[in-house]
Amino acid sequence: MIVVMQSGADAATIDHVIERIEQLGMKPHVSRGQFRTIIGAIGDETDALLPQLQSLPGVESVVPIMKPYKLASREFHPDQSQFVIGGVRVGGPGCVAIAGPCAVENETTVFTVGRAVKAAGATMLRGGAYKPRTSPYSFQGLGEEGLKILRAAGDELGMPVVSEVMDPRQVPVAVKYVDVLQMGARNMQNFNLLSEVGQTTRPVLLKRRPSASVKEWLMSAEYILAQGNKQVLLCERGIKTFETSVRYTFDVSAVPVAKRESHLPVFVDPSHAAGERDLVAALALAGIAAGADGFIVEVHDCPEKAMCDGPQALTPDMFKDMIAQCKAVASAIGRSWELPGAKPSAKPLAWGGA
Amino acid sequence: MIVVMQSGADAATIDHVIERIEQLGMKPHVSRGQFRTIIGAIGDETDALLPQLQSLPGVESVVPIMKPYKLASREFHPDQSQFVIGGVRVGGPGCVAIAGPCAVENETTVFTVGRAVKAAGATMLRGGAYKPRTSPYSFQGLGEEGLKILRAAGDELGMPVVSEVMDPRQVPVAVKYVDVLQMGARNMQNFNLLSEVGQTTRPVLLKRRPSASVKEWLMSAEYILAQGNKQVLLCERGIKTFETSVRYTFDVSAVPVAKRESHLPVFVDPSHAAGERDLVAALALAGIAAGADGFIVEVHDCPEKAMCDGPQALTPDMFKDMIAQCKAVASAIGRSWELPGAKPSAKPLAWGGA
Amino acid sequence: MIVVMQSGADAATIDHVIERIEQLGMKPHVSRGQFRTIIGAIGDETDALLPQLQSLPGVESVVPIMKPYKLASREFHPDQSQFVIGGVRVGGPGCVAIAGPCAVENETTVFTVGRAVKAAGATMLRGGAYKPRTSPYSFQGLGEEGLKILRAAGDELGMPVVSEVMDPRQVPVAVKYVDVLQMGARNMQNFNLLSEVGQTTRPVLLKRRPSASVKEWLMSAEYILAQGNKQVLLCERGIKTFETSVRYTFDVSAVPVAKRESHLPVFVDPSHAAGERDLVAALALAGIAAGADGFIVEVHDCPEKAMCDGPQALTPDMFKDMIAQCKAVASAIGRSWELPGAKPSAKPLAWGGA
Amino acid sequence: MIVVMQSGADAATIDHVIERIEQLGMKPHVSRGQFRTIIGAIGDETDALLPQLQSLPGVESVVPIMKPYKLASREFHPDQSQFVIGGVRVGGPGCVAIAGPCAVENETTVFTVGRAVKAAGATMLRGGAYKPRTSPYSFQGLGEEGLKILRAAGDELGMPVVSEVMDPRQVPVAVKYVDVLQMGARNMQNFNLLSEVGQTTRPVLLKRRPSASVKEWLMSAEYILAQGNKQVLLCERGIKTFETSVRYTFDVSAVPVAKRESHLPVFVDPSHAAGERDLVAALALAGIAAGADGFIVEVHDCPEKAMCDGPQALTPDMFKDMIAQCKAVASAIGRSWELPGAKPSAKPLAWGGA
Repeated sequence: MIVVMQSGADAATIDHVIERIEQLGMKPHVSRGQFRTIIGAIGDETDALLPQLQSLPGVESVVPIMKPYKLASREFHPDQSQFVIGGVRVGGPGCVAIAGPCAVENETTVFTVGRAVKAAGATMLRGGAYKPRTSPYSFQGLGEEGLKILRAAGDELGMPVVSEVMDPRQVPVAVKYVDVLQMGARNMQNFNLLSEVGQTTRPVLLKRRPSASVKEWLMSAEYILAQGNKQVLLCERGIKTFETSVRYTFDVSAVPVAKRESHLPVFVDPSHAAGERDLVAALALAGIAAGADGFIVEVHDCPEKAMCDGPQALTPDMFKDMIAQCKAVASAIGRSWELPGAKPSAKPLAWGGA
Repeated sequence: MIVVMQSGADAATIDHVIERIEQLGMKPHVSRGQFRTIIGAIGDETDALLPQLQSLPGVESVVPIMKPYKLASREFHPDQSQFVIGGVRVGGPGCVAIAGPCAVENETTVFTVGRAVKAAGATMLRGGAYKPRTSPYSFQGLGEEGLKILRAAGDELGMPVVSEVMDPRQVPVAVKYVDVLQMGARNMQNFNLLSEVGQTTRPVLLKRRPSASVKEWLMSAEYILAQGNKQVLLCERGIKTFETSVRYTFDVSAVPVAKRESHLPVFVDPSHAAGERDLVAALALAGIAAGADGFIVEVHDCPEKAMCDGPQALTPDMFKDMIAQCKAVASAIGRSWELPGAKPSAKPLAWGGA
Repeated sequence: MIVVMQSGADAATIDHVIERIEQLGMKPHVSRGQFRTIIGAIGDETDALLPQLQSLPGVESVVPIMKPYKLASREFHPDQSQFVIGGVRVGGPGCVAIAGPCAVENETTVFTVGRAVKAAGATMLRGGAYKPRTSPYSFQGLGEEGLKILRAAGDELGMPVVSEVMDPRQVPVAVKYVDVLQMGARNMQNFNLLSEVGQTTRPVLLKRRPSASVKEWLMSAEYILAQGNKQVLLCERGIKTFETSVRYTFDVSAVPVAKRESHLPVFVDPSHAAGERDLVAALALAGIAAGADGFIVEVHDCPEKAMCDGPQALTPDMFKDMIAQCKAVASAIGRSWELPGAKPSAKPLAWGGA
Repeated sequence: MIVVMQSGADAATIDHVIERIEQLGMKPHVSRGQFRTIIGAIGDETDALLPQLQSLPGVESVVPIMKPYKLASREFHPDQSQFVIGGVRVGGPGCVAIAGPCAVENETTVFTVGRAVKAAGATMLRGGAYKPRTSPYSFQGLGEEGLKILRAAGDELGMPVVSEVMDPRQVPVAVKYVDVLQMGARNMQNFNLLSEVGQTTRPVLLKRRPSASVKEWLMSAEYILAQGNKQVLLCERGIKTFETSVRYTFDVSAVPVAKRESHLPVFVDPSHAAGERDLVAALALAGIAAGADGFIVEVHDCPEKAMCDGPQALTPDMFKDMIAQCKAVASAIGRSWELPGAKPSAKPLAWGGA
């Protein structure tokens, strides 16, 4: 850490900072410039030290040198992480397409959409059973009943399934049915839930919060990794900006930045960023071109009757065209496309099991 | 709701929209302009209708006319809400000062700081027992032990106490000790937690998420109100913007906007917005001048040794000066200042009790 | 325009609004709902009417139905605009690469970089002679001397040249030398300069301001078009958001949105968005995949000695690799790549000439 | 400056950086930590050095230690700047109210509004003759004719007058009539215009651009100061954020931050931030409470017929109430209120004169 002193700081003030640095177990290294004194604090930079140094009288600013995340960092783990989920390799040379309805509304929709997306080339099946809704009066999801339907569809179609959890109490239920636990954007800093999913053996798709910096996103991954669960998939889904022509601004630069900073696979969710179906394909293509390891999109056979997020749902035909273009772009930059596994994770593991 | 059709929409497309509006239980009202057809959909605007209409072919946009929140809205509840919490009136003519350490670190700190802030004019005592931390390696709070210390301090000093809950499982514990449940900014859209606190009889201080619009903030209040808990205090604490000279941008205009849109009391938290103590007083004064019903700030007797957020903690002396200025400003705009109650809520209510 | 009345508006207030709508030359169309009265104002929506209606007592909001831009709008001009600039087609099936140093520093650099980028496949040559710098103490550009060097390089290499103007007084000078006038991001709403370049016969590359919505960007294009200059190229170059891992957030969704709203060609500038060379290729690829008609990037033969923006300058080798990938991606989505013209615009047109 | 090397940087790479630091006239100071090498570069930090060091191979980041602005900085000029403008002291103990119509529409309006605001306690008179409008089809101002009207009103009422310039060619005209030149938010980084107003003897009111950091704002002040004009008034007028309930987010924390960083007076413009008259008073009060040296607001005698920005114009009665509250708040924090000068600057100075 580098402590920059205020320009008028006197000797006693500087000595007090040096003393605190030593008390905190670091080695001070003082440079006196013409205008300011700078003190390097050499040693292990734990997150707690920065605010304590910043609180000292006479300190103008403290500049951290080390990344606040370790397990998520490429610096400490240079090799790209790859996981095999129900026969599908994630983070490898092949891109992965996750598709399905926003919510599990009923059996018919999930099976109809599931068959269509599989035929078009989707690799995994998504569907929400616990739905975070901004209004308390909106459809809140089918809960465990929905998870059963999704699992049945995944089994029949040979596709691993992805579904969201919103509450630590849902985790033991969800692990009975799903292959990948999804952490929604609004829960990216629900720290208790992060710890809970970190204690399962299920891969976690961690969406970026619309107001989270890449650094905060990786800190949330660190929460999961620190509990022993090494299978985290990052997912960019748009950030909150002043622009209102889209629902969220799809931050495509987060893809190369996250891949440089971290060894974890990086996905994109163009559906929630765009908020309308006509823009989804362009964003998915941009994400793949920028280096994403896959995407997750919403598809519905009758978007105008969808129980949530209809405007952004692709029709099966639009999805088919989009995936064909995505494959061509992946190939143009030297990537392949991951096919559905011959058979998915037939026996979901018990919670906390191995 | 107003449905704006695309400029080229033909008769059949328009008819399909009209038909769907009728099916959804609303009455269509068509205006054909030179360039576009506009269809008013008159009736009860539930949140689910908007995306369904937006999903229809030929629809360019759907403009809601009614507010998505009802219980939180001043339109349906014109009178200002006032609650009495442990003898302290909130939302009345008097402004309310909540102060205390960021975290309950130990008994000594809570009592020392509590005595100092009470002497200076604070009305309620705050302190975190469950701490949301961006790093999994930071101090996570004392849990129930911390709540006991806070309760003891509140009882001795005659001050109602405020503390944060982060997880639905903490709610039954917290209601045994605290007078006001705080929903932290990161949990503003933790919908399960909102429902849970909505089922208690404790007033809830609902912080605004750094990326939430005022409308989304009021929708979160609606979640709590919809469960039957009518005592919600809104709290602005800074939003995420491009400006880096402060931790968050204190959105002072949210105070008059929220007070116009809603009947609920509006507080400000200048400590988390500023992120550094030297700016806290200016923001607190601005909040009071703009019409806030009170503020919540962090005070520590030795900020450089605070276990969290030391840089933004006021010293007791700074707090004393600040509150004196705040009282003068409140008086300048015709407000008074609420004093600590003669005795706080001696017997905390049981969870879900009355 | 749709005028939404406040819920308590009485008959006299509503009548006054109706009367004003008629005075302003529009036809009122009233719908009385259970909670609010809505008044459609049918007729030509000029920009001035909206604030006047919004100022009326009892009006809650005014929702415009028509786009505020007409000449820039695809609604009024459905066919994609294409221009030929010095033998290079812009806005057609082929993508266009504009490359060169940030600033014209001296003859050697411009010719060296120009030869390298042409060999790699660049179509036009860029270089700044008038430099907008945030610090008054930074290098401000060579002025007319720089334009002469750029013109000479363009002539020798057979590449049309692009350079920025910052001040209306520079326009008559610049049109003597350059094929495309660039409006920098900071000048997107310098309305006098927009009018001035709108009166020339030179195509204009209009960068989006970091805080401009797509709508405001198109309004600035409208300023130029309204003066009679129909050759406007839009250029997305990153917006200001809270994310600090990049210099600006590259808003890739602005590409499909601008192409849907407008018939004008859309370019991307990944160099200024990224702010560092390692991210430029990923963003250029994303832009092309999302449908951009070309890109403009900065290349320098020795970035560490560049007089401005060295960190984001590609080396010639990096540029060569990047353009090869971009061509492959363009091809994957059915686009071709535009080659440099056999000979550039040999005789630059006089200012205001034809 | 502090150069942070990448963790894997080898000895040759580090030596090259050290060599460049020496070539650039600075003294290197090397600290080798366990994970990274840090090199302090001690000497004069000109703005050009940072990107050059950042461009060097093996450099992860460069952290500047000194402020990029000098003349604007409180560090180099600790005393608060005060100017007397037409008998009115700015930056002193008394707050200053600038008020008037958005645009000079005609003589009657300017005189009517001028008399009303003076009677209520305004100190200076504002009115736009050159209007920056987002639409080319909106009213663009009366130009020199408008300046004459404003000057006549100022003379009759004994109020110094403030008006905006948008183009370097307008500056010689404007200095003939106005006491304070206003740089609009969109022109905050119109560097040629900044230089031009910097060469006059007129005080400059420099509005902050909606996407400018406080640092960029002060850099723009530096442009003016560097030309020799020492009379710069900073003015916060709202920043662009995701919040849509107001036109811009009024960044009240910019007031104490700018006053701490700079010795220049700081004003606020609540009208443009709010975008609607009902919120203006709350924001003006917040600004004064946070320490602003004054405000500039828009007043119109018939807002619904105003030629621009009617929705945010206060009526004379609203202004009267607001200023009374502002005076009470100023007094509560120990400030007084500046009255109009006995006589304004009777003879406007020639451009560039003394």
